[in-house]
Amino acid sequence: MTIHTLVEYADASAEVRAVYDDIMATRKTDWINNFWKALANDPVTLRRTWESIKQIMAPGELDPLIKEMIYIGVSVTNQCPYCIASHTASARKKGMTDAMFHELMAVVGMANETNRLASGYQVEIDEQFKTS
Amino acid sequence: MTIHTLVEYADASAEVRAVYDDIMATRKTDWINNFWKALANDPVTLRRTWESIKQIMAPGELDPLIKEMIYIGVSVTNQCPYCIASHTASARKKGMTDAMFHELMAVVGMANETNRLASGYQVEIDEQFKTS
Amino acid sequence: MTIHTLVEYADASAEVRAVYDDIMATRKTDWINNFWKALANDPVTLRRTWESIKQIMAPGELDPLIKEMIYIGVSVTNQCPYCIASHTASARKKGMTDAMFHELMAVVGMANETNRLASGYQVEIDEQFKTS
Amino acid sequence: MTIHTLVEYADASAEVRAVYDDIMATRKTDWINNFWKALANDPVTLRRTWESIKQIMAPGELDPLIKEMIYIGVSVTNQCPYCIASHTASARKKGMTDAMFHELMAVVGMANETNRLASGYQVEIDEQFKTS
Amino acid sequence: MTIHTLVEYADASAEVRAVYDDIMATRKTDWINNFWKALANDPVTLRRTWESIKQIMAPGELDPLIKEMIYIGVSVTNQCPYCIASHTASARKKGMTDAMFHELMAVVGMANETNRLASGYQVEIDEQFKTS
Amino acid sequence: MTIHTLVEYADASAEVRAVYDDIMATRKTDWINNFWKALANDPVTLRRTWESIKQIMAPGELDPLIKEMIYIGVSVTNQCPYCIASHTASARKKGMTDAMFHELMAVVGMANETNRLASGYQVEIDEQFKTS
Repeated sequence: MTIHTLVEYADASAEVRAVYDDIMATRKTDWINNFWKALANDPVTLRRTWESIKQIMAPGELDPLIKEMIYIGVSVTNQCPYCIASHTASARKKGMTDAMFHELMAVVGMANETNRLASGYQVEIDEQFKTS
Repeated sequence: MTIHTLVEYADASAEVRAVYDDIMATRKTDWINNFWKALANDPVTLRRTWESIKQIMAPGELDPLIKEMIYIGVSVTNQCPYCIASHTASARKKGMTDAMFHELMAVVGMANETNRLASGYQVEIDEQFKTS
Repeated sequence: MTIHTLVEYADASAEVRAVYDDIMATRKTDWINNFWKALANDPVTLRRTWESIKQIMAPGELDPLIKEMIYIGVSVTNQCPYCIASHTASARKKGMTDAMFHELMAVVGMANETNRLASGYQVEIDEQFKTS
Repeated sequence: MTIHTLVEYADASAEVRAVYDDIMATRKTDWINNFWKALANDPVTLRRTWESIKQIMAPGELDPLIKEMIYIGVSVTNQCPYCIASHTASARKKGMTDAMFHELMAVVGMANETNRLASGYQVEIDEQFKTS
Repeated sequence: MTIHTLVEYADASAEVRAVYDDIMATRKTDWINNFWKALANDPVTLRRTWESIKQIMAPGELDPLIKEMIYIGVSVTNQCPYCIASHTASARKKGMTDAMFHELMAVVGMANETNRLASGYQVEIDEQFKTS
Repeated sequence: MTIHTLVEYADASAEVRAVYDDIMATRKTDWINNFWKALANDPVTLRRTWESIKQIMAPGELDPLIKEMIYIGVSVTNQCPYCIASHTASARKKGMTDAMFHELMAVVGMANETNRLASGYQVEIDEQFKTS
């Protein structure tokens, strides 16, 4: 089906190529992963998603590696196999060591556990934690 | 109902008090939040959960503040109001600035979005991301 | 808004009252909880949902109390406050002790944790677990 | 394992065949997809699920194609690969164009993002949005 | 805490006011709901999120009302109380009748059920549904 | 990548072997499934997770088979393929019949449906269900 075609660079419109070029330049790489090739079926979403990711994942108050690790934590919680694989690869490229990955997984696993203990025990929010 | 009673320090068994004391000493605080008071109805789970959290959230390859932020990312993804409130408070106590929180939210929001774009477009994992 | 009106017995159509009567008779109770009063805005969904629940939660290979506890496990995983409150009350009415609730929560919490460790480590399904 | 056998028409009981026949007649098709063949291991659940789906997905206030697209939105949010594949195929059969699919994905992705921004920022419900 | 302050128009910077003005003009309304007032603590995310939503929710291949209903379906699946309340209100403003809401809920509920039956029975994707 | 290596018994450290030996002795089996071989990359998490599971899944107020079925219910709700496969196999080994599995799936599916009806209709918790 057309909606699942992966748009290769050679077959891409000028509009899509411009995004591909920016992805490769920003990431200092010479290939495009399948996520973008799939989104390229919808050039408007391709551009908006890339512009948003580029802005959000840039260095800021948080280090890009930390941002990748947060991305993994969300993807693992949501059980998204593609996202786990791609962001784990990105994090490693940015310097995530085995030991860092292990700690990340331990935190993500425990957070998922205590999230359910808190809801199952119907724990009310402490006054000290209230925002207003 | 008994299962939802919050166990106050004054009413707690020696076994529960020992955990409460360790929580307060480890966190350098003089109060216990509702999550632990609820879990204290089951002293075995209270101890196991606290021992696990204590081990996992200690300084390691990742800074404790980073771990708190990952905890927030998971809790926000799971829509757990108690956990969002308590870990946001903990993270602020450990030094999370407004700007850091804003970046955290931006990453968590975007990850939740692209997780669905990846699954909706049925994107296959690139060979380069495969683990074996 | 109309869609959120709770339909009280006194104001209900004969069609809705027939379902309410069957709920109260089946559950040996004399009141209707808000979930059904909300669904009653859509009598077709009210009837279908009640008939399904009645069939599914009846005694079978699994005891009705066990079924209520599984229901709690799902509701806690999904972070549904209404469902956690109502099914915890139902389970207690059917005999769930504090100790049983504590074990239920421990299992639900741990399952949520290991679900993420399994996905985060990208663990492949063992040949022994494959179904074909 | 028996629980995962796919029940083919040739091997099905009269009870299961009756459901299969109704599925094929309703959908104007000559084959049964694996979901139903798996459920057929439990004829009671097979019948109840089919009757519910048949009722819910029929033309009503919402067009059947719109219902399929909502189904996709839920399945994508839940990361259910089987459901995404089967309902995307159904929607296309009912007339979903590439452009419609692209807009659907954009909405589903954005909703998943803002759901987390709303919970992460602990936004309180506006008086104007309250139902009572 | 600052991160949870709602930024009122009177206190907003020119940058934030420009977004608020565009929201009110686009939606033909004279007030700003809390979601945007919370995001306004981070003007960059406020602008990016608003620009994305404005683009995505505009009339296109899908009617804006249909888009609101898909938004509700996702928010209900994710158990986001704020999002359910706000998008239900928006959908009603755009013409969603009670009957449409009822059908929407029936589809969302059923999709969440069959998503789990498909994964629980470990149903393999039919060849006919495969994308390549 | 190292983080995804499966640690075989022959290559394991004494620390890891001790956990493997305890798993096999406790489960009366002579092999280790991939989940533990993956976790073994992080011996601290391996030990903590195993000790927790061993404690939680032991006979108590709830039968170990019931605990396995609750585990399946959570894993199905979270869409974790590995966990569904492994815990379904474990439950069968402990005596889960086809009929029990069918009832389990029916309950899990229905709970996932009504969880969304409750949130979608914004049902308020009945006074009778409140815990304090």
